[in-house]
Amino acid sequence: MDVIEELGNYSVDISKTIEEELSCIVPNNLQEASIYLTKAGGKMLRPALTLITSEAVGGSRDNSLKSAAAIELIHTFSLIHDDIMDDDDMRRGKPAVHKVWDENVAILAGDTLFSKAFEIIMNSDPEKNTPTQLSQTLATVADACVKICEGQASDMSFEDRYDVSEEEYLDMIFKKTGALIAAASKAGAIMGGANQEVIDAMYDYGRLIGLAFQIQDDYLDLASDEETLGKPIGSDIAKGKMTIIAIKALAASEGEDNKKLLEILKDDNNSQEDIDVALDLFNKYGAIEYAKNVALENVTSAKKLLEILPDSESKQMLFDLADFVLERHS
Amino acid sequence: MDVIEELGNYSVDISKTIEEELSCIVPNNLQEASIYLTKAGGKMLRPALTLITSEAVGGSRDNSLKSAAAIELIHTFSLIHDDIMDDDDMRRGKPAVHKVWDENVAILAGDTLFSKAFEIIMNSDPEKNTPTQLSQTLATVADACVKICEGQASDMSFEDRYDVSEEEYLDMIFKKTGALIAAASKAGAIMGGANQEVIDAMYDYGRLIGLAFQIQDDYLDLASDEETLGKPIGSDIAKGKMTIIAIKALAASEGEDNKKLLEILKDDNNSQEDIDVALDLFNKYGAIEYAKNVALENVTSAKKLLEILPDSESKQMLFDLADFVLERHS
Repeated sequence: MDVIEELGNYSVDISKTIEEELSCIVPNNLQEASIYLTKAGGKMLRPALTLITSEAVGGSRDNSLKSAAAIELIHTFSLIHDDIMDDDDMRRGKPAVHKVWDENVAILAGDTLFSKAFEIIMNSDPEKNTPTQLSQTLATVADACVKICEGQASDMSFEDRYDVSEEEYLDMIFKKTGALIAAASKAGAIMGGANQEVIDAMYDYGRLIGLAFQIQDDYLDLASDEETLGKPIGSDIAKGKMTIIAIKALAASEGEDNKKLLEILKDDNNSQEDIDVALDLFNKYGAIEYAKNVALENVTSAKKLLEILPDSESKQMLFDLADFVLERHS
Repeated sequence: MDVIEELGNYSVDISKTIEEELSCIVPNNLQEASIYLTKAGGKMLRPALTLITSEAVGGSRDNSLKSAAAIELIHTFSLIHDDIMDDDDMRRGKPAVHKVWDENVAILAGDTLFSKAFEIIMNSDPEKNTPTQLSQTLATVADACVKICEGQASDMSFEDRYDVSEEEYLDMIFKKTGALIAAASKAGAIMGGANQEVIDAMYDYGRLIGLAFQIQDDYLDLASDEETLGKPIGSDIAKGKMTIIAIKALAASEGEDNKKLLEILKDDNNSQEDIDVALDLFNKYGAIEYAKNVALENVTSAKKLLEILPDSESKQMLFDLADFVLERHS
């Protein structure tokens, strides 16, 4: 089956809910800037995960639709603010919000989506969700938001550091990427009426595939091809980014190899030759294979957690989504 | 009595709660940037209002302490982001967050406080607050956050407009300033266990004193003296700001007077003489007196709403706070 196609089935309902909820924002330019990126063709992985999990624990799609939309808005808010901070001009193949409008409007559009997300969860149908479910979901989303900020701050603080440990790296990507994916599956479990044991398992499932998702990103930067990836191979090396692969290779190498690798990572003007040397060193010390294995272990553990659920089409979707994280090429 | 001194009694508990809740933020520089402005000696008007209202409806200070802290963090978040957008270098007599650190850290510190605010409300003692109270408070705060963003966007959109109506202006200041003050008193009423009628009255009380607060700001810009105000008299005229006073004078004047006033407001390089001419025109058309009266009417209406409460020291504090809005000189 085609996971992207299946996600598309869910994304119709999510997009409709988001559009409805954002349609009352005034003034107009704030509404447009807030809506813009939500219509730019994202995969809607996170909100779909919420809906699928809700179904998988025996709830309905309706129970968690508002929470799903809210989680997508939190994701969009973080993309808008991250693009300002990272000075990224493009997002989802379109100019970033701060390029179409300006930084002030982009800050405000992000803040608005953030606020709306919490408002939308509160607008969940009280006949479908108990106040306790609402509170638990809000706490889950708020916790993920704090972690997203902390993760982004850590990521920024790694920029001039070349002694980042694997533990620090994993903590950073859990906060920056994993926490919201974990919140997405947990929110689905809560709103779908699962018990605490299942809710906790669904959080861990999301956390593990979130980690694998980010590690796969690091892997694809080296293992994909430029056309598929939409950016040059080895761009993380050129930027001197401390990925799990760079961290592993630095930790495993000594002497000249270690010195050379550090030199390339610190250099702001790498040649293609430099990047190839770094790639060879990554391979020599098994760092690429290592990253691939860590991602695979996370996905395997995530799938094992699904054993707690009764068999269903939705459960199968959660399996397939976990596999998809490693199968994707871009 | 001295209202500022009374607020000080409440601010000790609030500051302690804020400090505790923010102490676990990592990495360090994000924690420092997030805490910085909360320790810069704000009046803590909003969170004190939450505590006082909670007491006034028969609840305890403990019931609403977390919500009060959260509301102060929402206020602080909006100040940090506003200062970036308005390019204001100073806040509470200290360099703004984006000046001490940089814009990226300031965006992220604001986002962190925003996230923490929602998390803190969820951390309220479940033995003191029901899930329904928590949900209602969260909905109130989320609604205020959306309005703050909308109000800031409106305010920015007014910058090149000289045809802003009084209605548009009042809507803008309600969203930008009134909504969070209204949320503060409403949250206190909810957490203190008030019935819906009292909750609604307390929201309106906050809304009205919030409007009066902002109108008094416009008034003080012209009626105070430079030393007390800490900035030159007539700075809103120099900036061409559409305050209620400028809007009234433009609406009431015709011919040469109207033309002259418009000219001064549009001019980016006003002389002291220009500002004096505008001041004379404001007086000639009764615009300053008009603003003073609108503020007074709001405060009078706000105090009338307090009749729904049983007599108590806390009720008296709410009266005094309403009066203080007009009595303050800076």
